[in-house]
Amino acid sequence: MHRLAHLQSIAGWDQAANMPAKGNEARALAMAEMDGVLHQMRTDASLQALLAAAEQESLDDDARANLREMKREWRASNALPQALVEAKSLAISRCEHAWRTQRPAQDWAGYAANLREVVKLQREEARLLAADNGLSLYDALMDRYEPGMTSAEVDRVFGDLRQWLPGLIQQVQARQAQQTTLQPVGPFPKAAQRALGHDVMSLLGFDFEAGRLDESAHPFCGGVPEDVRLTTRYREDSFMQSMTGTIHETGHARYEQNLPRELLGQPIAHSRSMGLHESQSLSFEMQLGCHPGFAKLLLPLLNKHIGESPAFEVENLTRLLTRVAPGYIRVDADEVTYPAHVILRYEIERALIEGEIEVDDIPALWDTKMMELLGIDTRGNFKDGCMQDVHWGAGLFGYFPCYTLGAMYAAQWFASMRRDMPDLDQRIASGDLNAVFDWLKANIWSQGSRFETPELVRRASGETLNPAYFRAHLESRYLA
Amino acid sequence: MHRLAHLQSIAGWDQAANMPAKGNEARALAMAEMDGVLHQMRTDASLQALLAAAEQESLDDDARANLREMKREWRASNALPQALVEAKSLAISRCEHAWRTQRPAQDWAGYAANLREVVKLQREEARLLAADNGLSLYDALMDRYEPGMTSAEVDRVFGDLRQWLPGLIQQVQARQAQQTTLQPVGPFPKAAQRALGHDVMSLLGFDFEAGRLDESAHPFCGGVPEDVRLTTRYREDSFMQSMTGTIHETGHARYEQNLPRELLGQPIAHSRSMGLHESQSLSFEMQLGCHPGFAKLLLPLLNKHIGESPAFEVENLTRLLTRVAPGYIRVDADEVTYPAHVILRYEIERALIEGEIEVDDIPALWDTKMMELLGIDTRGNFKDGCMQDVHWGAGLFGYFPCYTLGAMYAAQWFASMRRDMPDLDQRIASGDLNAVFDWLKANIWSQGSRFETPELVRRASGETLNPAYFRAHLESRYLA
Repeated sequence: MHRLAHLQSIAGWDQAANMPAKGNEARALAMAEMDGVLHQMRTDASLQALLAAAEQESLDDDARANLREMKREWRASNALPQALVEAKSLAISRCEHAWRTQRPAQDWAGYAANLREVVKLQREEARLLAADNGLSLYDALMDRYEPGMTSAEVDRVFGDLRQWLPGLIQQVQARQAQQTTLQPVGPFPKAAQRALGHDVMSLLGFDFEAGRLDESAHPFCGGVPEDVRLTTRYREDSFMQSMTGTIHETGHARYEQNLPRELLGQPIAHSRSMGLHESQSLSFEMQLGCHPGFAKLLLPLLNKHIGESPAFEVENLTRLLTRVAPGYIRVDADEVTYPAHVILRYEIERALIEGEIEVDDIPALWDTKMMELLGIDTRGNFKDGCMQDVHWGAGLFGYFPCYTLGAMYAAQWFASMRRDMPDLDQRIASGDLNAVFDWLKANIWSQGSRFETPELVRRASGETLNPAYFRAHLESRYLA
Repeated sequence: MHRLAHLQSIAGWDQAANMPAKGNEARALAMAEMDGVLHQMRTDASLQALLAAAEQESLDDDARANLREMKREWRASNALPQALVEAKSLAISRCEHAWRTQRPAQDWAGYAANLREVVKLQREEARLLAADNGLSLYDALMDRYEPGMTSAEVDRVFGDLRQWLPGLIQQVQARQAQQTTLQPVGPFPKAAQRALGHDVMSLLGFDFEAGRLDESAHPFCGGVPEDVRLTTRYREDSFMQSMTGTIHETGHARYEQNLPRELLGQPIAHSRSMGLHESQSLSFEMQLGCHPGFAKLLLPLLNKHIGESPAFEVENLTRLLTRVAPGYIRVDADEVTYPAHVILRYEIERALIEGEIEVDDIPALWDTKMMELLGIDTRGNFKDGCMQDVHWGAGLFGYFPCYTLGAMYAAQWFASMRRDMPDLDQRIASGDLNAVFDWLKANIWSQGSRFETPELVRRASGETLNPAYFRAHLESRYLA
């Protein structure tokens, strides 16, 4: 299954990065077929007895953890009939592919038609999973990405955030209004941005003999641990989006490239969860990538590929990287307003899965919540509104909370690093990024799925998820 | 199986066009696993009875032809144990991948070590296939690519060729020695060559919404009919190789893109055979691509992408395209010396499979035969000698004859076209390439595998394979 999933990963990456339009129907059918084959293997009738027998054996810690992960997957897979798995794969492929042209065309009606089919199948999946594991409908879907996390816990953490975040955003904006920040002026040719991206990835330790950087409509980190495929997208009027996006995906990539290699093919060699994965991309993009010490390291790369500019001086570059401004696009958001985007999506997708709203209600809800949370008017602007992400079209309901959980974990990692290494900030500024990478490798990357999330977090940082570190990080970086 | 093979095709293309070095071990294991899954499906125990029952049903012509193709595949697959299929896939992946660095490094010893394993497994495959279908060892392998063709027939056709080809090469060289031909002077930037390649493919009717052009060490046409993936390679000192290579692969591509679309997924929707496939690439590269009328069509594209040059004037360009000069590299060979490369490989691979020689004997035999057939000294030059092709490393024993059979079929198609359209040459010169494409589409592309090769050839041209057309074509183009 590990080997066959390799082909599925590469085909998925190719679909986003290379495939011409007329190839999609056949690709969707091929990937749905493979989903069906893998599902058949996961639900093979002989597995139940084998798993029960293994439970009785004397196992070492790794084998016991492998068995735990196998049982989790077995249980989730057996809750779903093969016809649903195949229908879902097909609906998702179609919806994602059409989205690529529907988004620039502002074709909400066309997208909604495909999305309704995906939502229908996701609700059915939620119903079956919930019936099996006793979770609520939404929690049953979130459990696919963040095992053990519940919406009660998300409500607690996000509820706290909703209290102080709007005030913090205002304070930071007021403070930054007094600063003068120079904007770099384009156009910035794609080839120069691509070369910059490669150099930044090298600075961040990406292994180009075990991966690539390409382009796609929506940036992602795909492929397999032995061959990680990052994508980004370029705008000629700004290089910051592709640069910070590439830094983000490189965080995902290093996690994958540094999973316990000797265990590849075993369940515990997998990354722990999507929240943990996002904690790596955000450790790179936000904790490290917006650090004033890191701006010093970026400067020579910017000079080399983009040119010389007063905008690239360290103080100004740091201001550019930490500029807080409510905007339309989640993936372009700064780390202070980003959680607002996530709260919005969480509230909508949870209501959608629990049947409180329908696909047709999304645009109006989006408009209301964007105004409420960020003071932004998105009416009629589907492209930069509810069609900006392909997560829902891709059936990733329950994924969005992982981003902000990841930001919280990332703040917790860096707080823990600073306890271990009081000179961490000087080390970063001096270019000793291995101080960060070695800590992440030892505590997160190399651990794979040996431990359940709370245990992994406790081992790495001395306590389970504590959102106070995220608040402290934002206040220290933006208000100190 | 059709859908799963789609993933295998894309992964194979990606392996050659994109994959970084460290990805290969996992890719090889993944593709071997899929070969095993497909083999298991092909040899499912229930199939024998189902095929026998289908044989008794009342079937229309297409269903009858599908059954014929299914039985052929069933029989060939059942002759091979799964362990051999997987071992072969693995050995081939490793050998092909290592060849990419071994070839430039002239590392014959390293390549030979991998090749010995491939040859061992190919001999075992030949033994099992031959035991099943009663063919000789070599014929059993050739039958995989050119069903129904025997080495007795190849000997007859190639034997005739060996008689008159050396004399013809000498005559053409003597004649061309009196001509002055201007050589275009580089360097030719890769980006310009790539843009030229795209325009030439468009001129030849390639559908870019259903395919792509990329780069790989060895040019090939991969992917699936709905999404054809061509590759080429660029040398900055010459654009002719990539241009003619691209024309060649576009012939393969148009065959694939125009297979009977409504039948895709059925065996009769497949291309007929590799000889027939090469007849399309050589119809494009040689019959059409070296035609003086086609040079007229190339001229504006060359001016656009490469620049203006007296070398591109139609008469000189035609001379460049029809320049006959014995050389090291098969894929760069002109159509007159090309068959000599094929005869050499045919003689070596046949002896290798039949156990008359071993892998270690290849270099000396290569040197002897290159001197004998083309008067060229290849001693010590593995890169441009026996390591130039990856066919053997890829386990494609029995494939090489298809190239020259294809050249013969292509000459037969154009002779048939000229009977149907006496003004064909004027039509080509006037840019009416649809005269050629429509004929190929009606007679070859849209026919898929409905008919066995001799019947397809007879329907298209009024008679079965007749090598006299190839000789007449060469004499008319090069000596008239």
